[in-house]
Amino acid sequence: MTPLTSRIELNIDPDKLCESVASLLERHPLVYEGTRQLALQHRPEAADPWHEGCWKQSLISADSDFTEVHPELRDGYLGEMFDRLPFKPIRTRIMALDPRYCYSVHRDQTPRYHLAVTTSEHAHFVFVEHDKVLNIPADGNLYYVDTRHLHSAFNGGDEMRIHIVFGTDPEQE
Amino acid sequence: MTPLTSRIELNIDPDKLCESVASLLERHPLVYEGTRQLALQHRPEAADPWHEGCWKQSLISADSDFTEVHPELRDGYLGEMFDRLPFKPIRTRIMALDPRYCYSVHRDQTPRYHLAVTTSEHAHFVFVEHDKVLNIPADGNLYYVDTRHLHSAFNGGDEMRIHIVFGTDPEQE
Repeated sequence: MTPLTSRIELNIDPDKLCESVASLLERHPLVYEGTRQLALQHRPEAADPWHEGCWKQSLISADSDFTEVHPELRDGYLGEMFDRLPFKPIRTRIMALDPRYCYSVHRDQTPRYHLAVTTSEHAHFVFVEHDKVLNIPADGNLYYVDTRHLHSAFNGGDEMRIHIVFGTDPEQE
Repeated sequence: MTPLTSRIELNIDPDKLCESVASLLERHPLVYEGTRQLALQHRPEAADPWHEGCWKQSLISADSDFTEVHPELRDGYLGEMFDRLPFKPIRTRIMALDPRYCYSVHRDQTPRYHLAVTTSEHAHFVFVEHDKVLNIPADGNLYYVDTRHLHSAFNGGDEMRIHIVFGTDPEQE
């Protein structure tokens, strides 16, 4: 079996990342109750570029269609973050999980990379079939997670867990 | 290390258990949002016997003071359940976890025994320091969980997870 998870050095400044995301969320608030999101990549010609990528997978076209980073991000630290990625991201989103909430147990069609913005030691990713429990620290590095395996994540701490989640197409790499 | 979990045959009828709990909850609804509870044991002379055991550990006296099973339960299937236990239970509660909710990551002062009433394959107990993920099936048997280890539980399914949670004093056994 290929590894469920691995860490990739990205050397993002955690404080600058946190400030950039906070500033962005003032301009473009998260949508949805409980598991809240904001799309950082959109389809070319998208009618609602900040939100279409947040819809359920079954309601939208393939992740690989969400290729465009918002022009508004280009000159800021989030643009620099995109430039540093060692892969081609698709359908990147900010995903927030309130304290005491979890995601449904599910499989994604493709692996993901996670960059934690704010979190605590009590927020965990869980691969339920593999007895694997993973805390992703807000250390400015990327964590690859093979979310094609059955998984969830829960926030058992008191802080909001905010991650930037990058989609990726394994066939393109 | 002693085992984190073990299964104890109790041979409770899952359907009768489910009916008895549903009937009880019609008479005495669960309290609290999200992580909802109802106390099945109370302190002698308790002023609010169905609820005092649900309060936070720091607000109440020791679990070992909650020794009395409600007289109302004695002649029903829940009374039979109490009679079958191979240990002396304390501060027994019904604990319900709605879909997409989790508990805080915490340690209890004593181990617990769980009897699942309704659940799904997507509700999991997690020992976060031990990479241990545990689904407790509603099979009419008891599951010992050493909740003195750091843990949480999350409900990543679409069904309510309802467990009967028995406290126990390891020094009394």
